This record gives sequence, C-alpha cells and structure tokens, in this order.
Amino acid sequence: MKRGFGSDNHSGVSPEVLEAIAAANTDHALAYGDDEYCRRAEQLFRDTFGPEAKVYFVFNGTGANVLNIDAMCRSHHAVVCAETAHINVDECGAPQRVTGCRLLPVDTPDGKLTPASAETRLHGFGFEHHSQPRAISISNPTELGTLYTLDEIGALADLAHSRGMYLHMDGARLANAAVALGCSFRQMTTDCGVDCLSFGGTKNGLLMGESAVVLNPALDAELKYRRKQMTQLCSKMRFMAVQFEAYLATGLWRRNAEHSNRMAQLLLGSLEGIAEAEVVYPVQANSVFVRLPRKVWTALQEDYFFYDWDEADNVVRWMCSFDTTADDIARFVEALRRRIAEAKGRI
Amino acid sequence: MKRGFGSDNHSGVSPEVLEAIAAANTDHALAYGDDEYCRRAEQLFRDTFGPEAKVYFVFNGTGANVLNIDAMCRSHHAVVCAETAHINVDECGAPQRVTGCRLLPVDTPDGKLTPASAETRLHGFGFEHHSQPRAISISNPTELGTLYTLDEIGALADLAHSRGMYLHMDGARLANAAVALGCSFRQMTTDCGVDCLSFGGTKNGLLMGESAVVLNPALDAELKYRRKQMTQLCSKMRFMAVQFEAYLATGLWRRNAEHSNRMAQLLLGSLEGIAEAEVVYPVQANSVFVRLPRKVWTALQEDYFFYDWDEADNVVRWMCSFDTTADDIARFVEALRRRIAEAKGRI
Amino acid sequence: MKRGFGSDNHSGVSPEVLEAIAAANTDHALAYGDDEYCRRAEQLFRDTFGPEAKVYFVFNGTGANVLNIDAMCRSHHAVVCAETAHINVDECGAPQRVTGCRLLPVDTPDGKLTPASAETRLHGFGFEHHSQPRAISISNPTELGTLYTLDEIGALADLAHSRGMYLHMDGARLANAAVALGCSFRQMTTDCGVDCLSFGGTKNGLLMGESAVVLNPALDAELKYRRKQMTQLCSKMRFMAVQFEAYLATGLWRRNAEHSNRMAQLLLGSLEGIAEAEVVYPVQANSVFVRLPRKVWTALQEDYFFYDWDEADNVVRWMCSFDTTADDIARFVEALRRRIAEAKGRI
Amino acid sequence: MKRGFGSDNHSGVSPEVLEAIAAANTDHALAYGDDEYCRRAEQLFRDTFGPEAKVYFVFNGTGANVLNIDAMCRSHHAVVCAETAHINVDECGAPQRVTGCRLLPVDTPDGKLTPASAETRLHGFGFEHHSQPRAISISNPTELGTLYTLDEIGALADLAHSRGMYLHMDGARLANAAVALGCSFRQMTTDCGVDCLSFGGTKNGLLMGESAVVLNPALDAELKYRRKQMTQLCSKMRFMAVQFEAYLATGLWRRNAEHSNRMAQLLLGSLEGIAEAEVVYPVQANSVFVRLPRKVWTALQEDYFFYDWDEADNVVRWMCSFDTTADDIARFVEALRRRIAEAKGRI
Repeated sequence: MKRGFGSDNHSGVSPEVLEAIAAANTDHALAYGDDEYCRRAEQLFRDTFGPEAKVYFVFNGTGANVLNIDAMCRSHHAVVCAETAHINVDECGAPQRVTGCRLLPVDTPDGKLTPASAETRLHGFGFEHHSQPRAISISNPTELGTLYTLDEIGALADLAHSRGMYLHMDGARLANAAVALGCSFRQMTTDCGVDCLSFGGTKNGLLMGESAVVLNPALDAELKYRRKQMTQLCSKMRFMAVQFEAYLATGLWRRNAEHSNRMAQLLLGSLEGIAEAEVVYPVQANSVFVRLPRKVWTALQEDYFFYDWDEADNVVRWMCSFDTTADDIARFVEALRRRIAEAKGRI
Repeated sequence: MKRGFGSDNHSGVSPEVLEAIAAANTDHALAYGDDEYCRRAEQLFRDTFGPEAKVYFVFNGTGANVLNIDAMCRSHHAVVCAETAHINVDECGAPQRVTGCRLLPVDTPDGKLTPASAETRLHGFGFEHHSQPRAISISNPTELGTLYTLDEIGALADLAHSRGMYLHMDGARLANAAVALGCSFRQMTTDCGVDCLSFGGTKNGLLMGESAVVLNPALDAELKYRRKQMTQLCSKMRFMAVQFEAYLATGLWRRNAEHSNRMAQLLLGSLEGIAEAEVVYPVQANSVFVRLPRKVWTALQEDYFFYDWDEADNVVRWMCSFDTTADDIARFVEALRRRIAEAKGRI
Repeated sequence: MKRGFGSDNHSGVSPEVLEAIAAANTDHALAYGDDEYCRRAEQLFRDTFGPEAKVYFVFNGTGANVLNIDAMCRSHHAVVCAETAHINVDECGAPQRVTGCRLLPVDTPDGKLTPASAETRLHGFGFEHHSQPRAISISNPTELGTLYTLDEIGALADLAHSRGMYLHMDGARLANAAVALGCSFRQMTTDCGVDCLSFGGTKNGLLMGESAVVLNPALDAELKYRRKQMTQLCSKMRFMAVQFEAYLATGLWRRNAEHSNRMAQLLLGSLEGIAEAEVVYPVQANSVFVRLPRKVWTALQEDYFFYDWDEADNVVRWMCSFDTTADDIARFVEALRRRIAEAKGRI
Repeated sequence: MKRGFGSDNHSGVSPEVLEAIAAANTDHALAYGDDEYCRRAEQLFRDTFGPEAKVYFVFNGTGANVLNIDAMCRSHHAVVCAETAHINVDECGAPQRVTGCRLLPVDTPDGKLTPASAETRLHGFGFEHHSQPRAISISNPTELGTLYTLDEIGALADLAHSRGMYLHMDGARLANAAVALGCSFRQMTTDCGVDCLSFGGTKNGLLMGESAVVLNPALDAELKYRRKQMTQLCSKMRFMAVQFEAYLATGLWRRNAEHSNRMAQLLLGSLEGIAEAEVVYPVQANSVFVRLPRKVWTALQEDYFFYDWDEADNVVRWMCSFDTTADDIARFVEALRRRIAEAKGRI
C-alpha cells in the first residue's frame, strides 16, 4: 500500500529498530524481562524519567493504559477523562472489562481537560452509591492533535493530588508532544507530577513497543502480577527492550517525531487557500483534522485510506508519520484539489 | 547468555523470521489486521487447518488461551484441564480474571487427561449452584513433554461433544507434537474434532507470534471484539502475519521442531548410565524432566539456568530449542557429571 | 425517626406483606425458588406481563438491573442510558464491574431519552475498537420523577429493535408509573416491546422484593446461572415470592402507588405561592424536585432528612411514600415556610 | 411441604425474628444501614466478636464469602480451601467472577484443612506466573458436618499469618459450631486469629440475614464500596439488623443451634443397628452423611426430599433444623426402615 495519512501505525519500522533486534538475536536470554537487555533499557527509562521511574513493557497502548488504570484504581474507583480519550472511545471497553472501573468523560472543545472541567466530575467522595473518583487521565498530545502545556499538566496534577487522586498521561505519541513543547520527557511528566504514564513507541517507528511507566512508586506494589494476569507479559522481552534502547539512547524518538510534526505543518501549509478543507483544531503535533464536503471526502477515500473522525460533522483525520515525505504531501494535496474540482463540476 | 536448557523461549529468532519482517517493512499497511500480509497468512491457516479455520493473531500464549476460553465459555462455565495445565498453573489466574470462569483441574500421572479422568469432573449439569462444565482443555505436547495420540485426542473430543461441550488444545508447542506424531497440524486438530486451538510459534523460532485458531465456526461470533477488549489486538499486525507466513509456508516450523525434538533425544541418550539423573516422564517432544539429588541440582544451577519443576520431588525441567547444538548438550552433560562427582566427594 | 420525604425506602412495610410472610412460615419449603409459593408467584407474573414472562427474584434494584444488562450483553457491548440513570450514577459502577460493559450516557433535560438523543450514541457497529451498542435502558418513572408515555416507550423499542438491540426498563417504581399513566403493567412493558424489566416492590411497601422480568424469551437462556453467580440467589425464596403475591394479587401495588402519587400532588399543590421553592421537573409520579435557597435547604435539613440532588444547582429531592399522610405534608411545608422566613430575617 | 431433612434452609423463620421485624415496622428509618437499628446491631457484633469487629450485612452466604475474599485479595491472589468448600463447589464460580481470584482446593478426608495440607499449596510466592496465595478459607462446621477445634483454627491462623496471608472462616452455620465446641463466637474466631468471617443466620432461624464480619481492621478500608458494587447493599437494612438483634441479644442463636445439633445426635442414634445406613463422617454439628444402597436412597426420595451428596459413592446428606422434632425423626427413620425392607424383598 502506498504511503498515506490514515494513521501513524500504518507506517513500518525505523531501520535502526530492526537493526537492534537483529543485533540482540544471539545466543540465549532469560525470558519475561529477566535479562541484561531489559536491565539496560530499564536504566534508560530511569535516566529519562527520573531515578524512581519503573517501566513495565507491554504489547500495545490499550495494555499500557489498562495496566496504569489498574495500578491507580480498584473497581469501585472512577477515572475522569475527556470524552474523546482513547480509553473512553477506542478500546472497546477494555478499561471497564479488565479493571471494572467507571470512566467519567468530560466534553471538551479540543480534547483537553482543564481543572475546572475535570472538577465537575469530582463529587460523591465517601458516598458508597457513587464510583469514587480516583484518577484523572489525559492524553498528550490529545486524540485531536492538541497539546497540554507544562503548566496545564501541573495544574491537573495539583488538582488530582489535592483530592487524593492520581494523574495518568496517555503518551502513545509522547515524542510528538515533547518535540512540540521543546522539553524533555521528564519535564512534561515526572516534573509536572504525573503519577503514571503510557509511553508508546509503536506509532513513532518501533515494531511493537509500548510501556507503562510508574513515576509514583506508591503505585508499583503489585504491577508485575497485574501485568501477567491481564495477558500483557512478553516472553522474548529482550526484543522489546532493545527497541526502546534504540529509541531512547540514540535520539531516534526525537528525529522521528520532529519529522512527523514538521510534515503535519507542511500539510497544514499546503491546505492554505483551499476553502473546502477547513482545519478544525490547532495543528500542534502530527495530525490534521479537516472538515470536508462529504462528496470530496468520499471521493478522496478512493485514492487514500483515512478515518472518518466525526461523520455527523464531516470531519476527517490525517496523520503524518516518521516516514511521510514532502512528495507524499504534494501528491495527496493534489488529489484533494482534483476531488474538490470534480465535486464542484458535478454540482 | 550462553545457550542452555532453561526454556525454549530463551532462544532467539530464526533468521528466516527476521528476514520476513524486514521484507514487509516497506511503505504502509493498514493496521489491526486489515492488510494484505494478514490476508495471505489467514489463507495459509485455512490451507493448514481446513477451510473453516479462522485465525486471530495475539501477542502471547496466555492471550491465545484466554481468548479461546472466552470463545467457548461465559463466566458461569467451567473448563476441565490437567492440574499441570499452563492455564491452571502458569498464567497467574488470567483465565479466572479475564473470563470469570472456573477451572476444574484433574490430577494426572503424566500431564494427560483421559476420558475417564475428565469425566470425573462432568457433573452438576443444569444445577445452578455449580459452574457448568463447558470445555475440556488439553495441551499437546503437555507441559510434561508427553504426547496425546490422535486417537486420544479424538476420544476426548467425542466425550466433550457428547455433553454439549468443546475441546480446546493448547498448542504452544504444536509443531513439536506434530513432528513427533508424524502427522499434519490438521490431522491432530480439526480432524480429531478440536474446536479451538492456541497455536504458538514463539517457542519455536518466531520473534513474537501466537494465535487463537477457531476450528468450530460456531465459536467465532464475537471474537474480534473479545480480542480487542482483552487488550490482545496488535496494531502493526503485518509484522506478526509475516512471521507465521515464514513459519508455515516454508516448513520452518517442521525444521525447527524436528531439530529440538532430536536434541531432546540426544540429551536423553546422554543421560544414560548417569544413575543420579532419573528421567521421570517419557521424552516425546523437546523437554526432559529429571529427578536430581538436591546438591547436584543447586550446583548445576551455578553453571546453567533452569527451572525447579517440583521442588518437593527434586524434579527439574530441561528444554531443547531450535538452536540447541550437540555441543551444547555435550558441555551440559559434562557439567552435570562434574557436579555429581563433586557432590559425591562432598558427602 | 419521624416520617419524612427523604426516600420511599425510608418507609416500612405494608401490613399485608408482613401478614403474607407470617402465613408462609409453616413447615418446610424447598430453597432457592423450587417451591409452591414461587410457582404461584411466577404464574402471577405471567398473568401480569404475558404468558412468556419469566421472573427472577433478586435482592435489590441494582441486582435486577445488573442481571438484566447481563442478559442482554456480553462485556464488549454498551448500554445507552440517560446521564441521570440509576445504573449510571447510583450503583457504584456495579454494571461495569459485574458485566464488564460500557454505559453510553446521554444528557437529557428531564431524565428521558428520545429516539433522537439515543441515536447519537448508536454508531461504530462492526468496528472492533468501539464497544458495540446492544441495549437502550430507560427508567419509568425516571430518576427525576418524569414519565415516558406508551408511545415514547414504543418508539424507543422500535429504535432498539431496528438496530438489533434490546430495550430494558428500570421499573424500581413501576407501580407509580402505571397508575400515573392509567395503564396496566403489561401495556407499558411487554406490549410496548420492552425486552426485559427490573420490577421493584421495595420502594412501594415490600420488605425486600425486586425482580428481573425477562419479556423476550431469547434473553433467558442462562439467567439462572448468571443470577446465582452474581450472588443474587435467595435461599428462603418463598418469603420473597409471597411478598410479590400480596403485591400483585390483591392490588396492593396500585393502592400504595396511587397514594404516594396523590401525596406528591398534594405536596406540589402546597408549594404553590412559595416563591423560594421552585419546582424544576414535572411532578408525574411520587417525587418533587425543588430549587431552594441554600440557607433554607440547610436549615430545613435540621428538621428533616432529604438528599441534595444537585448541589451546584441548589436542587433537592422530596419523595412521597405509601405511608405519607396529609398531616406529614402540612407539617413539612410549615417547617419549610418557617425556614424561609428565618432565612429572610437573617439577611 | 412436610418437614424433612433436605436442608436447614428448608425450614421457616423463628417466631422471635418475625416479631422483631414487625416491631421495627414503625415510621421511617434511613436506608442502607444508616439507622438506629443498625447502630444497635453493630454494637452487638462488637460485643460478640470484640471491639474492633465491623459487620457488613449482606443478603446471602455467597455474598458474605465473596465480600470477604474481596477484602483479603486482589485478582492475582489465590485462596487455599478444601475441595469440598462451599466457595469452591456451590457458588457457581461467584468468587472467580466477582473477585477474579483463583481458588487452590485441597483434597481432605473430612472437609478440614490442616496446616500440612494447606502448606502444599503455599508456593510460588513472588513468581509472577503464579497466582499469589493470600488467604486460607475454612468452614466451621465444614460442609461435611465436621468441626475444627480452637487449636486447629489457631494453627491455621498462625500458618496464614506467618506467610503474610489471612484466615477466613465461612460460618454459615457458626452457631452450630459454637454450641458443639462449647465456646463463644469470639473464642472461635477473633481469639483464634481469624481475620474475617462469614457469619450466617438464615440457616438457623432468620428470614434472611447474613454478614461479613471484618475482625482484622486492616481489611476494612474500602468494603462499603465493594459491598455496594457487588450488588449486596440492602435498602431497608433495619429489617436485617433487627433479625440479628433478636438472634444475638436473646440467645436465639444458641437455642436454635443446640436444638438442631441435638436432633442430629438423635437421628444418628436412631440409625444404630441399621446396617444399610452407614454414617460416613463424624456427626459433630447438625448434619448426618450416610452411605445407602442406591435402591433405598431412590425409594426414600419418594417420601422425602434430600440431596445426593456423592452419587458415585452413594452418599446422601440429611440435615436437622431448628424446627426438627423427635417425631419428624421417628417418622423418617421408620420410612427408611420400610424402604430398606422393600429393597431386600425386591432382590
């Protein structure tokens, strides 16, 4: 399939990652994380997120999110999140099934919670008829491609902690956020008071590499059992560890994320002057959300695969990836212009 | 770490598998299984297991087992299995947590259920106070390295079906069973009446590749949702599909399994005449279980990592892998002999 | 505690119910529902709801709701309901924990879903990343004391069925709805296309009597096991059956509900001319929701217990019960007037 | 149905209990346990079990057991119990479904665990592939009508505590055990180191009254939410509280249990000299287990309902109740003799 803008997990794997896997393919290593490759990767996570950070490698983003919710909550707890949050919308109810928790979604204009909007769900403490709010979960960047600033993250952490709650960050695309904010991973997580983090690499060039990173050691008591019991323990873990090693140790995360963010800006710029393609959210990471006439949208999907984001509102999502090229964008925008012209002709 | 006999997932990846992954690393592919690589792999599964076979790729063996139990059962059902079954002993209660089901373990001399022993747990049908037996689960080869013959599998399938139940096979090492039995995958599963199968490749040379294969189409109604909800849906699925393609299309499964089984026989032969190393189960696949004097065991673990299988009974497990060499075995047995001699000297 | 307006389960038990329990207290009866008292009560449910109705007695309303959700859904399904629904707000996440399902709450002005508002949550069918909408759940009367008409119920049933979904009705106070609508239980449930019903008696004069009534026989396959496994099977069931017998056979349900509805109208009428007590929802059953100045509310709670319904909006709930008297109301309104006067004096 | 020996929950309700319910049926009381009746009953539990005892009223024995397991365990934990334990055999998998835990059953000759037999399941601590043993659960009297002595209870508590585990007692018939042991409730629970207790009354004369009693305050952190979320919170709780008040404050528990135990001894004595009725367990509480020729058994079930306890072994269970009379026993044994004589005649 030709390169398109459907998702950043339609792209393949950065060559450095496959090389690291091949290099680790010698002799034997203990399974389930008890090997030297994992020790090195764990040290890299401590170097990256602070000396108390504890990483649990998992298979996918849903696994990371659910393990983190499980770390913060028992089943009578509730998690405040944006209505658009991946945990709320895109995990087929995995949080509910695996943890038994209730989610408390909040409508937002841009995918971002604020202390004020989160607070509307913080009530009923001590009342046994109500699920007890226990965590706030945010995604950075959000599912709408918008960003929380460091101050905004810190304010939500303060709110959570002031109520005896925790702050979780879904960082499936954390690298895109970090390069956009111009800060380190640690500055936007540990230093802001984030208690646990879903840290992803698959969407940014890894083959298969996600993780739950516990930044608040109080949450770590039983996670190794919880990960195993929720079917997220990998056997040949060394091959996951070395992906993260390649990702973190050599700046691959930064190179890839800078590139995909830059491509999103290029795509955004290429849409200027195309009145039919109305950009609906600030483009702050690697995705562009556009409102299109229905006919254009349908016709363009004959050329390229991409997701209907909000059918009722005619909004689609276009994502740039670490392997997106300027040529890809030029061809895509050309196709868009052609489809717009056709649609006009038809009316 | 030097090659040892701790587990067949301590070994790395067959070169053919890494090559297949590298070859698939071009351009874009739809995520979550909706791509051409997966279409081809699915066809290979139908070629292998029969035209109605439906494969669900998952991350690990526990995922495959739990998804299969979930396909057969709702939470008020029960699954009869050997006391030593992986689902009973080695999954930290994942079947109970994820499916809510009860397991009905049966003591066995050799890890194998028989119709007679399974039948001891088949009662209480229709009585709402008892979990309702709904499936029989067997592992082939068993966790003790023993084999079910085709007739034995068929007899258990007949028993299950005669009671309105299903037969599940945990085939984490199915290739080792197939080459030992000298039959095709289909002959030992679909043709025997197996309803669903956990088909593994990771222990036999894949990087990360397991699957739930539904052979009875009646079980397939909702599995795509169930897989996603239990956190077992892979995004860059093409890279899992091509591993299985390399495995099934070129006979890699057979070459690797034949080798590891042969190495197990070599190891077994090398133990002849060593009175202190008492082989406790028939060696029919790639594992050898040995009763050792405690001192020898402890000392040998300084040289090599391996698992205490039954501490109370002084039994350990040694496993051969696709990359085990005759030299590895010679060195290991030499170390064993030395440790035995030392132990004698010490007494 | 003197009679007040806190809840209709603050009241005691209708004398007829205690008499029925005493009358059944002779000799032995089989446990768990397998007795003649239960046979008679089950027949009464068929007489009441239609020949295919199947009743499952349970302990409480949460048990009835969760058992019904479990009858309609597996864990990857979702249930559309009003944001204010008891299952969403007041069951501490029991639906999520026990069934694993996701709820899809809809904001409403008056606690009532409409086909249009329910439809906003009906999307993503067949898309494995999204919980699959499987049921619509409505309460009649709603938690805000408002009513669905027969036409409105039928329209929601039609919507549900047109999408392969089910309609559940939470009838914790179904008697209050039936007398207000002037229809039979059957007319407002079975005849409208309701698939399953939580039918309560505890809030209308029973000691402890709730039930899940399956009106669509397709939902009944495994409920006896599901009830037992979710801890809702009563041993001395005869004493639950005879409560429902007294309730249904002699018109007790009607007498009690007519009375409490009438008392709510009396209370409503008594509030006329009290500008500080603003009635915020139509009074259609036995509850009255009132917006009060905060000082009045707080002061009145020194005289009477009642729930803050919406602290942010200064709304409280007052409920009438089968044992509420006109005198109770007169005294309560007198206290209210006094507290209003005091509050004015203070300012 | 005439009085028989099927179960102690086939009997009705002690008159004192119905009187207490009627006496509490005045005016209003707060729901869900927040009333004066509950305060008094809670004080009685503290008087009975010690000042730190905290009682949670629930609907049935399964509810009590599951709430207690939930208090001790998270889903990756395991509970050691006798193979014959109610939690293992008779709850349709409720512990697995509601708590996600694994049970570790132990074969026993008489329904009783010993430190040695329990210890066979205490391994794998710290190994994430295995469910972590967290509790030992015993029933007193056992499901086979046998008793643990105070020393035996204490020894199991010591074992549990020495491994960082807890001891749970299923006391569905605790009164029968207490009168047989000639000790107080406290002596056989709190004073022996029991951490939490399922304390039942329904089988000994209550209408519906069970409870989870937390004796180790460390287990009490979140139980009020857990009870609600698992659907075990009663609304008109005063009527459950006054049953326990009648039970504990006036010695009703002792009078009823002494009577049913005495009747079991009378039944045992009446079987002397009947060679065909072989008593298979010591009769220490209110049940008698008898091996009978199949024909006799079947024929006698035409006269009386009772449970096949072990079909394969031809063992049945006969239970005496608080309302069993000497005449009941005489008639029952006469029927037994007649059926034996018939069976002999037929051969």
